[in-house]
Amino acid sequence: MMVRIYKIGGNVIDDPEALSEFLHEFSRIPGDKILVHGGGKESSRMCRRLGIEPKMIEGRRVTDRETLDVVTMIYAGLVNKRIVALLQSMGCNAVGLSGADGDSVRATRRSPQPVDFGYVGDITPRGVNAEFITSLLKEGIVPVFCAINHDGEGTLLNCNADSVAAAIAAGLARTMPVDLLFCFEQKGVLADVSNPDSVIAHITPLTYPALREAEIISGGMIPKVENALRSVDAGVRSVTIRSSQNLADGSGTCISV
Amino acid sequence: MMVRIYKIGGNVIDDPEALSEFLHEFSRIPGDKILVHGGGKESSRMCRRLGIEPKMIEGRRVTDRETLDVVTMIYAGLVNKRIVALLQSMGCNAVGLSGADGDSVRATRRSPQPVDFGYVGDITPRGVNAEFITSLLKEGIVPVFCAINHDGEGTLLNCNADSVAAAIAAGLARTMPVDLLFCFEQKGVLADVSNPDSVIAHITPLTYPALREAEIISGGMIPKVENALRSVDAGVRSVTIRSSQNLADGSGTCISV
Repeated sequence: MMVRIYKIGGNVIDDPEALSEFLHEFSRIPGDKILVHGGGKESSRMCRRLGIEPKMIEGRRVTDRETLDVVTMIYAGLVNKRIVALLQSMGCNAVGLSGADGDSVRATRRSPQPVDFGYVGDITPRGVNAEFITSLLKEGIVPVFCAINHDGEGTLLNCNADSVAAAIAAGLARTMPVDLLFCFEQKGVLADVSNPDSVIAHITPLTYPALREAEIISGGMIPKVENALRSVDAGVRSVTIRSSQNLADGSGTCISV
Repeated sequence: MMVRIYKIGGNVIDDPEALSEFLHEFSRIPGDKILVHGGGKESSRMCRRLGIEPKMIEGRRVTDRETLDVVTMIYAGLVNKRIVALLQSMGCNAVGLSGADGDSVRATRRSPQPVDFGYVGDITPRGVNAEFITSLLKEGIVPVFCAINHDGEGTLLNCNADSVAAAIAAGLARTMPVDLLFCFEQKGVLADVSNPDSVIAHITPLTYPALREAEIISGGMIPKVENALRSVDAGVRSVTIRSSQNLADGSGTCISV
């Protein structure tokens, strides 16, 4: 048994055609697989429509009670069920899950010190219910996770979808080989940001320091690659940073040992 | 193996204290169980906040595209995940489901002739994926259904929660004994609507015609009881119409053969 975990974000979720195309390709990938999705811009749009003022601290959004309700509605309701219904129509037996469902992903509310971000949660691989997720995979089910999790005490928490995908990957990696794929708008980690085709094919813990030193990897790519290296360190077999298009082509930047 | 299916509506869902109390009692009921919930008034409130004009035809609400999005957000997102997170905090291993999840409940869009109600679906026991639901029960999971289902072709459909509960009951009744419990604001079917304690303890297909004839059962109780009789006719062992309080007291009106 092995599993591939795909994470998609706003560039796919906010574009109905791109979403449908992605899901079509995803549905055709053989073997066990999991999808993790963010929420895209729909929740910000909904907050605006409802007159909820975005609260930012140090450039980061605060999830107050009202905002938590909106992200729960949008991520766990609208986006998740739309994806599941589309996958079902493509013959892919998906089940949509928040972390509360089956106690599948438990989060810890972020400490209100020094900054109170409200109902925001952090998760660790220990919060991942690998037994439950594995039992679904064994039934031929494709779990589709949103980034809403729970604290086990009745409170839902808004989490970062990249972190959810990474935690599920590390949690499952204890019992099976796991490949984690972050699908986004670029073809991979680029050696030259002005050239969309300059994809670095392979990064390892050994080659990374020199790439970083030479500033071949820079800016927003640094946290992405460092998170991927942490996943590999946590036992994930490979992390691929790649385009959300042409899923089966094996392209992108592969981070592994 | 046998299962109890509880259906709750607005009187519980719209009142946080009543909901918490109900779920506490529900979580303590031993054996296999399923919860089906409606949406309460939250979706109407949300439609108003979003400036979506309710469209009514012949006194019944039309679910247009925008309204479908709202009921999906509220029923499958907010209400469902709140319930699941609360049940988890009470030690009850719940999994929230729309009909699209695991293809658990498939609906047929209501014919646009003579009246087009939009994205409204009807379900039959044949649309119920008893195999999947049974596999969850066998894992010790408590399925929590909202009344949003799918047509198998990628479209979500808004359904009546009473009908969803009845269809799941009849679908499961083919392979195991099923007791269906409709929990609402009264103690049961009343012989005298002005006396809340005048609960008719038992109704059967044989005793119903005389109760109806004598107008002891009248008004809004007629469809409730006739639906219950249809469930019994479809193989459900018993249908109880009862209060959403004091779940374990065995009170209410029991409809059986």
